[in-house]
Amino acid sequence: MDLETSPLALPFPEMPAIDGVTLRVARARYKNWDRCDLTYAELAEGTSLAGVFTKNVCCSTEVEMGREQVKLGRARALIVNAGNSNAFTGYRGREAVEQIMAQVANHLDCQPSDVLVSSTGVIGVPLPKDKAQAGVEAALTAEPCSWQDAADTIGTTDTFAKGATTSAMIGDTRVTLNGIIKGSGMIAPDMATMLGYIFTDAAVEPAFLQACLSAASEQTYNCITVDSDTSTSDTVLAFATGKAGNAPLVNADSPGADAFMAAMLDICRQLAHLVVRDGEGAQKFISISVTGAKSDESARRIGIAIANSPLVKTAIAGGDANWGRVVMAVGKAGEPADRDKLSIAFGGIWAAKDGLPLADYDEAPVAKHLAGEEIDVTVDIGLGDGKATVWTCDLTHGYISINADYRS
Amino acid sequence: MDLETSPLALPFPEMPAIDGVTLRVARARYKNWDRCDLTYAELAEGTSLAGVFTKNVCCSTEVEMGREQVKLGRARALIVNAGNSNAFTGYRGREAVEQIMAQVANHLDCQPSDVLVSSTGVIGVPLPKDKAQAGVEAALTAEPCSWQDAADTIGTTDTFAKGATTSAMIGDTRVTLNGIIKGSGMIAPDMATMLGYIFTDAAVEPAFLQACLSAASEQTYNCITVDSDTSTSDTVLAFATGKAGNAPLVNADSPGADAFMAAMLDICRQLAHLVVRDGEGAQKFISISVTGAKSDESARRIGIAIANSPLVKTAIAGGDANWGRVVMAVGKAGEPADRDKLSIAFGGIWAAKDGLPLADYDEAPVAKHLAGEEIDVTVDIGLGDGKATVWTCDLTHGYISINADYRS
Repeated sequence: MDLETSPLALPFPEMPAIDGVTLRVARARYKNWDRCDLTYAELAEGTSLAGVFTKNVCCSTEVEMGREQVKLGRARALIVNAGNSNAFTGYRGREAVEQIMAQVANHLDCQPSDVLVSSTGVIGVPLPKDKAQAGVEAALTAEPCSWQDAADTIGTTDTFAKGATTSAMIGDTRVTLNGIIKGSGMIAPDMATMLGYIFTDAAVEPAFLQACLSAASEQTYNCITVDSDTSTSDTVLAFATGKAGNAPLVNADSPGADAFMAAMLDICRQLAHLVVRDGEGAQKFISISVTGAKSDESARRIGIAIANSPLVKTAIAGGDANWGRVVMAVGKAGEPADRDKLSIAFGGIWAAKDGLPLADYDEAPVAKHLAGEEIDVTVDIGLGDGKATVWTCDLTHGYISINADYRS
Repeated sequence: MDLETSPLALPFPEMPAIDGVTLRVARARYKNWDRCDLTYAELAEGTSLAGVFTKNVCCSTEVEMGREQVKLGRARALIVNAGNSNAFTGYRGREAVEQIMAQVANHLDCQPSDVLVSSTGVIGVPLPKDKAQAGVEAALTAEPCSWQDAADTIGTTDTFAKGATTSAMIGDTRVTLNGIIKGSGMIAPDMATMLGYIFTDAAVEPAFLQACLSAASEQTYNCITVDSDTSTSDTVLAFATGKAGNAPLVNADSPGADAFMAAMLDICRQLAHLVVRDGEGAQKFISISVTGAKSDESARRIGIAIANSPLVKTAIAGGDANWGRVVMAVGKAGEPADRDKLSIAFGGIWAAKDGLPLADYDEAPVAKHLAGEEIDVTVDIGLGDGKATVWTCDLTHGYISINADYRS
């Protein structure tokens, strides 16, 4: 089905070239469609690799292999297939991935393990080897394309192309970070896997690149939720070509490490927000800030419990400042909380303090805030210093229509 | 708003009298409505008490007090207020509950701790003491009423009255168990608390009554979910008057204990199913049987993860045999599972075995099954002997309409 562009979509940004990264796209025709569906990123020799993957234990072959490749820390190429997830396809699915790796490795004269592969789309159908081979062949020799072309090509049920860029100073050297991402919640038949790729020209050792990506993920990808469901293929990879010529970042004590880590957090947050903005049926972008929890992780868990509550999400969809539902969601998170110390605000206006509704609570400005597209919910637990912010979207008829009214 | 009766509603059953239980209802007018909203159950002296309560840490005053009363194991009366949950009302809410307990205790010449109180309805507004006093006064002297009247009166946003009855032989004595329950998911402003009450004329010591209720709850109330949200006031109480004259059940070795435990499980399952059948917007009653898990508890957790998945629930709403979404939900449960050992069936017809779609899978009979009102999903994990069955309903536009389109 054709989906309308999300009302929360952002325009694709201007993105500079990244030295050491060449993007190409091609038509593998994994589905009966006329669009590019195979993306190829060629990476300079010596490119560092890091990755984070779904915690879903029923993960895909590509995720299993990716986890092993990340341990080696090096990459020369990325192939992203759109239209077929290759999930639940057993040994035949694995053979298709190995074929792609060998084909690209042969072209680049590198190791097959230097070639990362991701796939999203229909499940239960092994990636067709003949289409993959022809598609890869076409991509290897295609003209280089733009970041927006690549972002469009990795997408499946996304309603808009998602990209972000930022930069950081390492000593006297400005390094650039570009990212593209796909995902819009979980839509059958694609399961709307979130696949994100970050490319930088910075010189960064694999271990520190991994440390930066893992830390940023905790505060970004692990702090967003559309519908609480977790894909079997979720993957974010980071590639650092080193072409900027900075003194390589080895660990957090390297000069410029802080700036690079901040830039990584920035781009991951931008990308994560874009996924929420394409949440199925989303009409509102919701930021939930939790303060006063026992720890940051406790705050994050409470935030996710609120963000996953269908009752909170529907209340906000309906413009209802229903703080009782927020209290309920805090209580079910399983984290330390005390009903009589909870305070809750919408758009910065306190509706309840210390477990009681405010006597002089004026709902009018809150209702105005909730009528907008960007909703802020603040919850103070009143127990400690832990804090976290999580992001989600509202739950609307659009979600039901996308997921129930159409057959996959 | 007025809600249409759920299409999954069952007619109210014929329910016999229970010796030692007298039901009365009255109008406290907690809301601006003309209906009975206060239920009073008078219980014979010597009645045993057991209870299970919400695990939501932001629980209500009534739940806090109920937990203490259950430790004493005795009850003479139950008062249920409908229309005001008395939640998040601090000390003033507690005063109202204590007033009711004292008033009923004075009438019955018993201890205030023998009087159980439950409340559901709007939150953040202390239960008005004057209305409670007048309502209780009226209820104490009202004519006895029927089980259906009581079931109607405890309801708030329920679309049908919910009752169940069963019996068991203890030696030569037939004992009866009657139950009434309210709840339909979580609807603001009521948060649709689930409140259930089981009454029996059996003679059962409190400790064993508690053991039976706790065990039954694990397999019934803890195996249902409408939308994953957990009320701050969920409560199920069991009262045993002892008037049937059986040799008192003291523990699992008492003659007839097995039969009583089976009857308790039966009535709890009936009541739990009725709540699912009144799930907000429910069009289909879904049974999810998980086998082959590492343990029964692991099977239950996997089942609940499937039952809470918005993607599984919307797929079933749309009649879509989407086994990939079931695999995803199994994987995110955080329990032991192996993608390549999973098997999934709809209506007894296997769609996938050992992690792969069946080559000769015929979707036609599955589609027919999914077009019905009673949906069976079977998931075999392939790892052990653990099994559990959980129940839920589908996720439809009705849920969104109830929770988002109307202001509370």
